[in-house]
Amino acid sequence: MANRPHVVVVGAGFAGIDCVRRLVNEPVDITLVDRNNFSTFTPLLYQVATAGLTGSDVATAIRGHFHDAANLRVRFGEVTGVDWDRSVVQIDDDELPFDHLVLAAGATTNWFAIEGAHENAFPMTTLADADHVRAHVLERFEAADADPSLVDCGALTVLVAGGGPTGVEMAGALAELFAMVLAKDFRRLDMSRARVVLVEMLPHVLAPFSEGGRRHAAETLRARGVELRLGEKIAAVEDGAVRLASGEVIRAQSIVWAVGVRANPLADVLGLEQSQGGRIVVGPDQRPPGRSNVWVAGDMAATAARGDALLPQMAQPAKQTGRFVGGQIARLVRGKSVQTFRYKNLGSMATIGRRSAIADLPAGIRLSGTLGWVSWLFLHLMQLAGLRNRANVLVNWAWSYFTYDRGPRLIYPRATKPGSPS
Amino acid sequence: MANRPHVVVVGAGFAGIDCVRRLVNEPVDITLVDRNNFSTFTPLLYQVATAGLTGSDVATAIRGHFHDAANLRVRFGEVTGVDWDRSVVQIDDDELPFDHLVLAAGATTNWFAIEGAHENAFPMTTLADADHVRAHVLERFEAADADPSLVDCGALTVLVAGGGPTGVEMAGALAELFAMVLAKDFRRLDMSRARVVLVEMLPHVLAPFSEGGRRHAAETLRARGVELRLGEKIAAVEDGAVRLASGEVIRAQSIVWAVGVRANPLADVLGLEQSQGGRIVVGPDQRPPGRSNVWVAGDMAATAARGDALLPQMAQPAKQTGRFVGGQIARLVRGKSVQTFRYKNLGSMATIGRRSAIADLPAGIRLSGTLGWVSWLFLHLMQLAGLRNRANVLVNWAWSYFTYDRGPRLIYPRATKPGSPS
Repeated sequence: MANRPHVVVVGAGFAGIDCVRRLVNEPVDITLVDRNNFSTFTPLLYQVATAGLTGSDVATAIRGHFHDAANLRVRFGEVTGVDWDRSVVQIDDDELPFDHLVLAAGATTNWFAIEGAHENAFPMTTLADADHVRAHVLERFEAADADPSLVDCGALTVLVAGGGPTGVEMAGALAELFAMVLAKDFRRLDMSRARVVLVEMLPHVLAPFSEGGRRHAAETLRARGVELRLGEKIAAVEDGAVRLASGEVIRAQSIVWAVGVRANPLADVLGLEQSQGGRIVVGPDQRPPGRSNVWVAGDMAATAARGDALLPQMAQPAKQTGRFVGGQIARLVRGKSVQTFRYKNLGSMATIGRRSAIADLPAGIRLSGTLGWVSWLFLHLMQLAGLRNRANVLVNWAWSYFTYDRGPRLIYPRATKPGSPS
Repeated sequence: MANRPHVVVVGAGFAGIDCVRRLVNEPVDITLVDRNNFSTFTPLLYQVATAGLTGSDVATAIRGHFHDAANLRVRFGEVTGVDWDRSVVQIDDDELPFDHLVLAAGATTNWFAIEGAHENAFPMTTLADADHVRAHVLERFEAADADPSLVDCGALTVLVAGGGPTGVEMAGALAELFAMVLAKDFRRLDMSRARVVLVEMLPHVLAPFSEGGRRHAAETLRARGVELRLGEKIAAVEDGAVRLASGEVIRAQSIVWAVGVRANPLADVLGLEQSQGGRIVVGPDQRPPGRSNVWVAGDMAATAARGDALLPQMAQPAKQTGRFVGGQIARLVRGKSVQTFRYKNLGSMATIGRRSAIADLPAGIRLSGTLGWVSWLFLHLMQLAGLRNRANVLVNWAWSYFTYDRGPRLIYPRATKPGSPS
């Protein structure tokens, strides 16, 4: 087994996991490094934040994915840098030599340098983020129940910044949580004062979707009580309020930042050329120019789409680039040449809530409403790793659907203030 | 509705919840105060600590219990004291007047003033405690996988202090986790070095159980690889080791404190007479001597059992005293006289793991092995509040039973060091 090339994969998200899956039966030794011992199904984080699912439902133990992989080591730790001269990855106080390096450390919140955002808004990229949002929103309802004067200060207002899929799904799920659950939990509160406000800079929500899908989403959100503030730019985020570029101030004690993501900060310390949002510039084979044994996959890679555009930082591009990179390393090891990555568009989906979702599928197929929602449920259930997670999610979804109830809406783990390290 | 007596119930555990349940249809106004917005099913915390269940499985939203109770307010906050002269309860910076006060704030860890215990051992009384134990044990396995020299320092050793039901259930579940799951997760670790050590001062485990039950538990634990150190007193807990009174030092980087509990520290600041473990002295009607409108229920109360003994600090005494106190307040309000509390012994159960539990039931019925285990499963499932929790727990138990797998064994939320505030 000696002298087999050593592949170090940084990050066990969609890209890293699918890269390793492609490599476990190849003549290589693999080390998969992640700062968590679990992989997060990020498309459902908004349901964790709104008490529909629990963290364990959307997390799977990394080691559990690969019990039969004899050529894989899993390493729990944080990659802090790469020594290119010596070809070693720095992990905490240790280092790891590599023959091939796959950078797939994902993305983090993009604050877009908006004043006060990092200090006063809750990010939504990790499991801890989702738990903190839920705990904070619920804690504010409890506080207002004990002291109704807080309602005037926006204690019952959640402002979602950003009208992309995350923002729309978050706003829709919050409106549902308010109407179906919190209205029963807090009978003494004036729930007409509970607001979900969605602020989006563009004149429409869900920019990547078709015109019909956008309109359906906007109409459904409004019908369910979400206040849409389209075409409004956020000038600053304050403690308990958002100031718009127009000068208007919206009071909200819970501010959720779903404006966008940027590459993991690891991308900033590698000395590799970066593109928009810190993403690492790669050629058509997902390698940074001039590097023969370095590969970038998923949200960290500035993978080209049509024209000047980059592929969106979502699950499908991550899975496909991860698998592609694994395949290319396998080809090189077997003496074959490297290919060009081609993205296969499987379509986009976003759910607005109960019996409402939109799906723009290939071949121009557009679904919305109940049919879109059923497709969304089915596809997300199937994509979840692990039968156990699927069974749990199915139980929880069925429960919510038939009872209009939610899971234990725990103020736990306790929210840290935005801006504090989590 | 004015002039109805106001009952303040402190604590939404077994005692507080059952007290409120008894009172929701009575002519009183109730405020139920808890520092969490959820109630924890503590008998299953050890399964959360060993990755069998998730926190949400054993927690229920307090407000969800009482959607139809028009005479109840739920108050999220920490009770810090009582002003007896003014008959008000102090909650954070606020206060709440009462006509009747029910003290049911439960128990916390009893360190028994053993040197270093609070600083170096993990408690096991709250949901956060259970999450911390799981995160820490798993994190030590990850650390040893990266640096095998840590094995000699006890990185793979979990020492459970205390051989009562919690300690026995914890040790049995850990042995199962090691053998069935971690052995597959960590194929490069020498799992023969992974130890579960149970230290108990008495010459047997499970003191409250019958001789046969104790023996069955000890034999099963040993057969499953738990090292029993009976008749050994812990002299001190150090960072990474336990020192026995005999002078022997056992290296263990995970030390779980299941020695016992004491009353919630609130009991220490009330000026009421206390008994062993800080429990508040009560008469046969669960009122402290000389108090006509103060009631104590559950783990906080020094409820008399036969002779000088007190009722154990477990779910059944808590539920029964809680319900009794609610009933007595209802009687007083209706002009009736107060009765004497009589404990109805429904028996005790403890599970050692897969297909093994012991049950000492009334009328001398003793179950052990598979029959005991099936009874244990059924009774705990039925006692869990909420159909949704039951469905989730059933899915998770069935999954574990048939696949020998566990749920997502997450290092999350991250463990804080023992002794730091959680």
